[in-house]
Amino acid sequence: MASVTVVAMSDLPATSTAFDLDTAVERVADGAYAVTVSDRWNALGGGPNGGYLLGLCLRALSAEAPHPDPIAVSAFFTGRVAPGSAELRARRLRGGPRLATGATELLQDGKPVVQATATFADLAAGGRTLELVEPPELPPPDDCLDLLGERSIPGLTIADRIEYRVPELPGWARGEPSGDPSADFWMRFADGRDADTLSLPMLVDAAAPVVLELGELGSITLQLGVHVRARPAPGWLACRARTRHVIDGYHEEDFELWDERGHLVAQSRQLALLPS
Amino acid sequence: MASVTVVAMSDLPATSTAFDLDTAVERVADGAYAVTVSDRWNALGGGPNGGYLLGLCLRALSAEAPHPDPIAVSAFFTGRVAPGSAELRARRLRGGPRLATGATELLQDGKPVVQATATFADLAAGGRTLELVEPPELPPPDDCLDLLGERSIPGLTIADRIEYRVPELPGWARGEPSGDPSADFWMRFADGRDADTLSLPMLVDAAAPVVLELGELGSITLQLGVHVRARPAPGWLACRARTRHVIDGYHEEDFELWDERGHLVAQSRQLALLPS
Repeated sequence: MASVTVVAMSDLPATSTAFDLDTAVERVADGAYAVTVSDRWNALGGGPNGGYLLGLCLRALSAEAPHPDPIAVSAFFTGRVAPGSAELRARRLRGGPRLATGATELLQDGKPVVQATATFADLAAGGRTLELVEPPELPPPDDCLDLLGERSIPGLTIADRIEYRVPELPGWARGEPSGDPSADFWMRFADGRDADTLSLPMLVDAAAPVVLELGELGSITLQLGVHVRARPAPGWLACRARTRHVIDGYHEEDFELWDERGHLVAQSRQLALLPS
Repeated sequence: MASVTVVAMSDLPATSTAFDLDTAVERVADGAYAVTVSDRWNALGGGPNGGYLLGLCLRALSAEAPHPDPIAVSAFFTGRVAPGSAELRARRLRGGPRLATGATELLQDGKPVVQATATFADLAAGGRTLELVEPPELPPPDDCLDLLGERSIPGLTIADRIEYRVPELPGWARGEPSGDPSADFWMRFADGRDADTLSLPMLVDAAAPVVLELGELGSITLQLGVHVRARPAPGWLACRARTRHVIDGYHEEDFELWDERGHLVAQSRQLALLPS
């Protein structure tokens, strides 16, 4: 594991953004990192958002990877996580001139709570391109509503980290779930940090689950797969979220992120459980 | 790792199907299995099909799992695999009354070539169901064409294991790629084995890649995520395959499998590379 970048809290400038600060990892041994799970990314249900935990895992994996962009990412959420100290173990499965793959586990109290694997590459390398889908049709962000506005949902701290702009208030936010688990909207970091390929796998999991439109009260992510397809331009990200199959209490959520140039930058699918 | 089922070649009856025979694993130590990578599942390009290798991994994981159905599966393909002997290492990440997760690595010559993780559950447990998509519209299999018919493609041994029925010959098979990387068709095991939740993660990767319709000569799978959504009824499986975004030489392929009752039984997405 040559040329490992040590990213300790103390190395970060005071101007660092919330995401960078809260995903800082400290290398304590070969492939072992000490981390602090922040309470600033809590989701519906009160625990840390799964995407944020994946962001922590990717930070350690990227420190071990010879290429900059996590193009294929998979995370399995295998246990409850509480804000506080935790441990990351990372190791390389493949290192090559074009592709490198690493695997990591987040452990809390010695128990594996997240397992994440990622393949890294250089998305600036170029190649054949053919786009058959249009980005979400949305009014410009400035002509949209702030989803939460002045409202604050107790415990939902991730809503302080991310801004959401919607063409109209979704049914669930008006107390009238529409019955259609889909949503198109804008998203960005609230503190002005621009998205990059390391934060996109967090952002695909950072919005309200569209099953809220079915009258459900939340969604428990079991597995999240993310493909990062391009480096995002600065600015807002257009989001397209869909659930099409709710079967025996399980549902998928498909999520796309498009940058302001109209380029697809990430797509994800998660398998999740309805809270019962 | 209590109550491990040992599935050795010698335990299998002589009537076992190709898939069961060729995914047999022999437990040689705690969490360690000896396997033989068969040459009967070779894909375009000549090497073993990635889905088949995933089938091998799942066989070991299912031997360690307390629940029958692999509901969420992710595989990273990290190296070249040749037919012949290999080794599987499997371990449990989570074991619970409802969900259990295990991780495995397939190693050949000591090198990790596939890493697979899977969460197992019992899909017969029931729960809320809402289906918003129709199955592929296809004529009955008996009114369709046999994709390969009497043709045999040298080296493509997986085509002897699986039957494909198409409403009409696809453009690539007529030497006239259509430009639209999508396909709807039927599939089943050629030897009459019915699909089950352990074979669906192989079957989602068992068809010709739809980028053949773009004039490409193949597709190299980097990562494959599969969600198994229901136990399939016996018989044919209706398939829907789509690639919508080819970006810088990478493309996703989305794949759905529906059983003859019209139930979605599996959906997958893979990130793959165009051969260059």
